[in-house]
Amino acid sequence: MTISYEAFLTKDPLDNYEDPAKFKQYATKLDKYRQDLEDALVPEYKVELPQPIDQLIEKQFNAVDYLYQNKLLTPKEFEITDQSAVSLAAKIADGVYTSVEVLKAYAKRAVIAHQFTNCAMQVFIDEGLERAQYLDDYLKTHGKTVGPFHGLPVSLKEHMDYRGKVTHASYVALIDNVTAKHGANTQILEDLGAVFYIRTTQPQAIMHLDSNNNYTGLTKNPYNLSLSSGGSSSGEGSLVTLGGSAFGVGSDIGGSIRSPAGFSGCYGLRPTSKRVCQYGAQGGGRGQEAVMPVAGPMTRSIEDIEFFMKHFINDGKPWDHDFNSIRIPWKDVPQPSIKDLTIAVMYDDGLVKPTPPILRGLKDTVAKLEKAGAKIVEFKPIKTKEAYEVVHKMYTADGNSVQRGKLAASGEPLKKLTKWFLNYGDGAKDITVSDYKELNAARDDLRHEYNKYFIDNKVDLILSPVYNNVAPKPEEVYNWSYTSLYNITDLPSIAIQTGLFQDPAIDKWDADHANYKFRSDLEKLELDNYKPEEFVGAPISVQLATRRYHDEELVAGTKAVLEVLGTDLYKH
Amino acid sequence: MTISYEAFLTKDPLDNYEDPAKFKQYATKLDKYRQDLEDALVPEYKVELPQPIDQLIEKQFNAVDYLYQNKLLTPKEFEITDQSAVSLAAKIADGVYTSVEVLKAYAKRAVIAHQFTNCAMQVFIDEGLERAQYLDDYLKTHGKTVGPFHGLPVSLKEHMDYRGKVTHASYVALIDNVTAKHGANTQILEDLGAVFYIRTTQPQAIMHLDSNNNYTGLTKNPYNLSLSSGGSSSGEGSLVTLGGSAFGVGSDIGGSIRSPAGFSGCYGLRPTSKRVCQYGAQGGGRGQEAVMPVAGPMTRSIEDIEFFMKHFINDGKPWDHDFNSIRIPWKDVPQPSIKDLTIAVMYDDGLVKPTPPILRGLKDTVAKLEKAGAKIVEFKPIKTKEAYEVVHKMYTADGNSVQRGKLAASGEPLKKLTKWFLNYGDGAKDITVSDYKELNAARDDLRHEYNKYFIDNKVDLILSPVYNNVAPKPEEVYNWSYTSLYNITDLPSIAIQTGLFQDPAIDKWDADHANYKFRSDLEKLELDNYKPEEFVGAPISVQLATRRYHDEELVAGTKAVLEVLGTDLYKH
Repeated sequence: MTISYEAFLTKDPLDNYEDPAKFKQYATKLDKYRQDLEDALVPEYKVELPQPIDQLIEKQFNAVDYLYQNKLLTPKEFEITDQSAVSLAAKIADGVYTSVEVLKAYAKRAVIAHQFTNCAMQVFIDEGLERAQYLDDYLKTHGKTVGPFHGLPVSLKEHMDYRGKVTHASYVALIDNVTAKHGANTQILEDLGAVFYIRTTQPQAIMHLDSNNNYTGLTKNPYNLSLSSGGSSSGEGSLVTLGGSAFGVGSDIGGSIRSPAGFSGCYGLRPTSKRVCQYGAQGGGRGQEAVMPVAGPMTRSIEDIEFFMKHFINDGKPWDHDFNSIRIPWKDVPQPSIKDLTIAVMYDDGLVKPTPPILRGLKDTVAKLEKAGAKIVEFKPIKTKEAYEVVHKMYTADGNSVQRGKLAASGEPLKKLTKWFLNYGDGAKDITVSDYKELNAARDDLRHEYNKYFIDNKVDLILSPVYNNVAPKPEEVYNWSYTSLYNITDLPSIAIQTGLFQDPAIDKWDADHANYKFRSDLEKLELDNYKPEEFVGAPISVQLATRRYHDEELVAGTKAVLEVLGTDLYKH
Repeated sequence: MTISYEAFLTKDPLDNYEDPAKFKQYATKLDKYRQDLEDALVPEYKVELPQPIDQLIEKQFNAVDYLYQNKLLTPKEFEITDQSAVSLAAKIADGVYTSVEVLKAYAKRAVIAHQFTNCAMQVFIDEGLERAQYLDDYLKTHGKTVGPFHGLPVSLKEHMDYRGKVTHASYVALIDNVTAKHGANTQILEDLGAVFYIRTTQPQAIMHLDSNNNYTGLTKNPYNLSLSSGGSSSGEGSLVTLGGSAFGVGSDIGGSIRSPAGFSGCYGLRPTSKRVCQYGAQGGGRGQEAVMPVAGPMTRSIEDIEFFMKHFINDGKPWDHDFNSIRIPWKDVPQPSIKDLTIAVMYDDGLVKPTPPILRGLKDTVAKLEKAGAKIVEFKPIKTKEAYEVVHKMYTADGNSVQRGKLAASGEPLKKLTKWFLNYGDGAKDITVSDYKELNAARDDLRHEYNKYFIDNKVDLILSPVYNNVAPKPEEVYNWSYTSLYNITDLPSIAIQTGLFQDPAIDKWDADHANYKFRSDLEKLELDNYKPEEFVGAPISVQLATRRYHDEELVAGTKAVLEVLGTDLYKH
């Protein structure tokens, strides 16, 4: 028996606010929006695809390999775009590169990334070049940079407000929503010298660990175009992995930074809440604080995660831009010796067991860390089922009223995973504050227990999957349990690459799997989707987490782990 | 026309869960509780009151003056108990005093304070003496203290969990609630060397800016026994002012630290949320985070506020005890020159204008600060009416279901101000999460505007009343607007003494007041209660506030202000 997706949609009909007639009125505007995006792709940056995109998808095409093997950039362009933001910023400051040449190289790579993966929501390279020229002039005139990110091409998830541009968060109803001011993150990054030229995709209602929306459709995985880029910071995952920006900024309320980073092949940090700004972003979350949305960096190196956090916080002073950002300076924490780290491994969260490639990634990582001298202990999941249930109820505690209102306003068709998340918890039921307080109290118990776990057991990091599988097929990601666990507990957590990739020859189900007794319909739905031959080359990532407001220790510990793993995303 | 209290109780009947028959079953236990308290008052510490307490109340007796004028303590006891905790801790550490003699002096003073003001909920001097002896032995054996608070007699608001003792938060239904473990604050203070011997009063449901409860009744104001001590940290206000502890710990969700400090005559800091612990306290708030309850110190000097915060945070590491405490070390901020401070004064919040003594206190303070070189600007209230309405709706957003459940469990009679607060907002209506999110969103707008105000206007501190009056008559405090403003905006704020006291000869309404057009029934109700001759000698306090998570700057700025005011609470 196969458990179908439809069988899970058990709540009251949630899609009765789809309205084809109303939606039709947006057709012209949507067409223009898409045409503007197409027109913004500078023709000389574009490459000819080796085959039509559908055929590439069909053959599980690896765009990352193709980029290098077919030398889609000049050696100089590869040089510029294949170094860390730390190094790039230093070279721009030293006059080794101009901001203009840096942007040109990144913009070209971003256009190519978009051609393969459909990662862009909005592109404005002209404006970026003007800004880069201004920065070059500034450096020349003043003999100093405007800030630590001077000249760095930075990509932004679209839902962050951008001065003078439409910010729609993938809601069709917001297609005319020109935001007057930059959101707090946008403003801080600009103040620190960033150059903007691309805003990236997110799924409808920003609540899929995938990408589908009525503006641009699906975003594809750079390592295997037939797979999902992850989400909801979907475009950032693909773009950053393909080197289309020096770093990107995503946001995460259930895994939306870690999923696309993990699936697509880069790094993504979900900091503890309120360290990076959330003020000035479109979405359904205003006034919702039971599980906080959190913005954070997506990069190709752990050094760049640290670079972002340190300067964003210490130079950007987010608390001057966002009342909700807590004034905690970023502290320099030296990289620990791997021998001094105690790492607790969660091989299975008790809800959905990981597929063979994920298990291989975990075991390989553990073996390397153990060999290097780390102390490895097993993490026995603490109330993961309760965490899953509570956080899913929290997502929909207002009966999805804000999202439903914004969806109904345009009558836009509901994507498959929109219906899925609208069914979370009590679905369309707007629960009472009494019940909400009970959810918060359950959450607080979880936070207490996880905090105590780290302290009592002297554990530095928890190592776990990002998701029960490598990047899934588009619109086939149902389970959030491995990432949302750290949203409800508000633990800083990071998706990192093991350096391994799915291999159908190795990553087969073991013989026992045929007799496996699924612990839930969800587990069956997820695991039945894993057919080894369909996930060729998908990056195998893992997740590290630590105590609340120990983001600095998480980053320092991750540096030690990655030194052992030797995962260098710039080496091809 | 007089606006009556009753006229305000407009919601559905809220007191239908009073149950005299059920309550009667608690009579024996309540009697025993009160008898235990009486028995715990060490006889040799007690003094003979100059007259029966009712007559003292009648004549607006000043217990503070009496304590000194009639030398109720020995010179040595005065010496020990009339110095800052900073100084006392240093002398205990140096062997100048033993912990035992220090506790004896404080316990005696606490017993006297209780005789006059009824500030104690539970007294256990024997246990305190044992603990003090242990600390003396420890110091002798190890040649060092157990921590920065070694030997300091510390008082605690009763609702904080205490190992092995009943913690009832003034709910009669919780009379058998023996808490197995210390609450986080209790534990940290104990770890740092504090000696416990007294737990202090709070009103029913801990939601009055006053004191009445079914265990111990009213707590009186030390400077005028006919007046309220304030609340909800009622006993702390009286006890700390009368020098019955080295410092106390209260908690504040609408003014509950600042009201008793301001009314009774000491200092009280409501820090920004999540810097001092809240974990392990009884009350109605579990899972409620729209407006956070906050614990903080109550002292007789600003140095002791700083001493508490610095060591509680940096040595106590609250984040190891309370998952919700944010890991922000207490930073040393030098005391600024008064000439470098810009202070914005709010003479009237637009809801309830201050009575003559409060206005005199503000004007006197401003004149002194201006003369000393501070830059004074006027603060035009920002959305104070909206702040008042939103925060009051938040208090009761769950339809008071938790409080009502705990009250109904014993059927205890409802105190006047319990009915008052149960009527806040939508009263018994358990609102939906959608509506709750709207309240949060309105709160967030306020937080944004207040944050922006400080930044855009380069204002260091806002100076304002603690309340529209000096300490009111018992059960006559209706308006929370001056304090709850900083709960909803989560600004750190402190009640300080001006050194002035109400004087009926001076503090009369001006001639215009007869023609004053009240802006609301609430304002009329509050102001009609001010009859100059009834508030003789009440302390005149003011409040200072600054930006979120700038607690250190608030304390440093307050030091500069108090240096100008010359308010020394140890000088008699």
